[in-house]
Amino acid sequence: MSQPSPAVVLLSGGLDSATTLAIAREQGHACHALTFDYGQRHRAELIAAGLVAQRLGAASHRTAVIDLRAFGHSALTDDDIDVPKDRDETDMTDGIPVTYVPARNTIFLSYALALAEVLDSGDVFLGVNAVDYSGYPDCRPAYIAAFQAMAQLATKAGVEGRGVAIHAPLIDLHKTDIIRRGLDLGVDYGLTHSCYDPIPDPGRPTGVRPCGRCDACLIRKHAFEQLGQTDPVLEPSA
Amino acid sequence: MSQPSPAVVLLSGGLDSATTLAIAREQGHACHALTFDYGQRHRAELIAAGLVAQRLGAASHRTAVIDLRAFGHSALTDDDIDVPKDRDETDMTDGIPVTYVPARNTIFLSYALALAEVLDSGDVFLGVNAVDYSGYPDCRPAYIAAFQAMAQLATKAGVEGRGVAIHAPLIDLHKTDIIRRGLDLGVDYGLTHSCYDPIPDPGRPTGVRPCGRCDACLIRKHAFEQLGQTDPVLEPSA
Repeated sequence: MSQPSPAVVLLSGGLDSATTLAIAREQGHACHALTFDYGQRHRAELIAAGLVAQRLGAASHRTAVIDLRAFGHSALTDDDIDVPKDRDETDMTDGIPVTYVPARNTIFLSYALALAEVLDSGDVFLGVNAVDYSGYPDCRPAYIAAFQAMAQLATKAGVEGRGVAIHAPLIDLHKTDIIRRGLDLGVDYGLTHSCYDPIPDPGRPTGVRPCGRCDACLIRKHAFEQLGQTDPVLEPSA
Repeated sequence: MSQPSPAVVLLSGGLDSATTLAIAREQGHACHALTFDYGQRHRAELIAAGLVAQRLGAASHRTAVIDLRAFGHSALTDDDIDVPKDRDETDMTDGIPVTYVPARNTIFLSYALALAEVLDSGDVFLGVNAVDYSGYPDCRPAYIAAFQAMAQLATKAGVEGRGVAIHAPLIDLHKTDIIRRGLDLGVDYGLTHSCYDPIPDPGRPTGVRPCGRCDACLIRKHAFEQLGQTDPVLEPSA
């Protein structure tokens, strides 16, 4: 029996990347999850990534410490910028969000490319989504295609004819479709973390509960509601 | 009088990047130097970068700590792989060198892109050289062009029509031409560090002297000789 082909899966600990890992697993890949500690305010995201990687049977899970905080310029890494609350979804897609991190997906994909080369992997998965994050340039299909074209020229594997494919299986899906797909694949969304402004809660596996009011919380909440469900992270603590 | 336009310059502390910084300065940019601490064996490289940035009048100098060591797979970051010595230049350009770091320039350029966005800079300079480093895929002109194409789609600036140009002014130059250009611009190559296997020497500004025998030392040595000069880092310590 042949070994399953290795894939690198970018795993933030959020809903989208958890679903992406489940999709890559379903396709038969041995999945090497890669998470970034980039000075985000909330360690819950890193804890969630570890829980999700384990639950979904990742072959390995690495957390790379990267140093974006020195560059500032984002609500996710800069304590002086407020996280917007209670916005409706029209506001969220208006322009580039305050939570934008400069060149984030480019940096993350670059690390994934390095790991793919080390693992002799030809497949990188990431959970970007152009529908809900239309304001982020680096979540769009043209960007992903351009990154893949660059990657072919960047590495030994590319130059020797074994390319690297960048897979973004969620890119055209609405949040409800993503969640429906993940539920079919057995993703436990109660282990994921998306909130930009969580509240400490030692009774939770991630150590926090979501605020329920930031953009990330509201997008999830509304999508679960459209499926006639409650987002499990919004259930009261046991 | 208008402000000089800001540029991001990748600065390793080696000969090529020092020359690149001098070229970017000559073009009138306010140069923001960016160095990476990626677990390289020799801190001398980081010290050299600081000395070069200061001497050449960089507007700022950042060192970003990145975490490539967890990925292994290179003589520059893995103590178990020997640095090749006393090779002739035919061997050096035969295939991809053992000192290859996976996806290194892609990762470095990604950080540069992030910093360029934060500084509202449209110009990134790096000292890659396709002549002496033909074995590295990510030193070739096609790679640089593909990175720039990707960068246009990756950032707010690109999407809003203010592009980022990736400048590799040394890409087609032979080492002798690089050194001649740098000497004309006043680069003090005695502050630079290129050696893969240096010897501690507290009498030197970088704290080490070069081995004189690894590929990096030999390429410099021969180029200075062709100009009728001695590489200043190979002069005996005072």
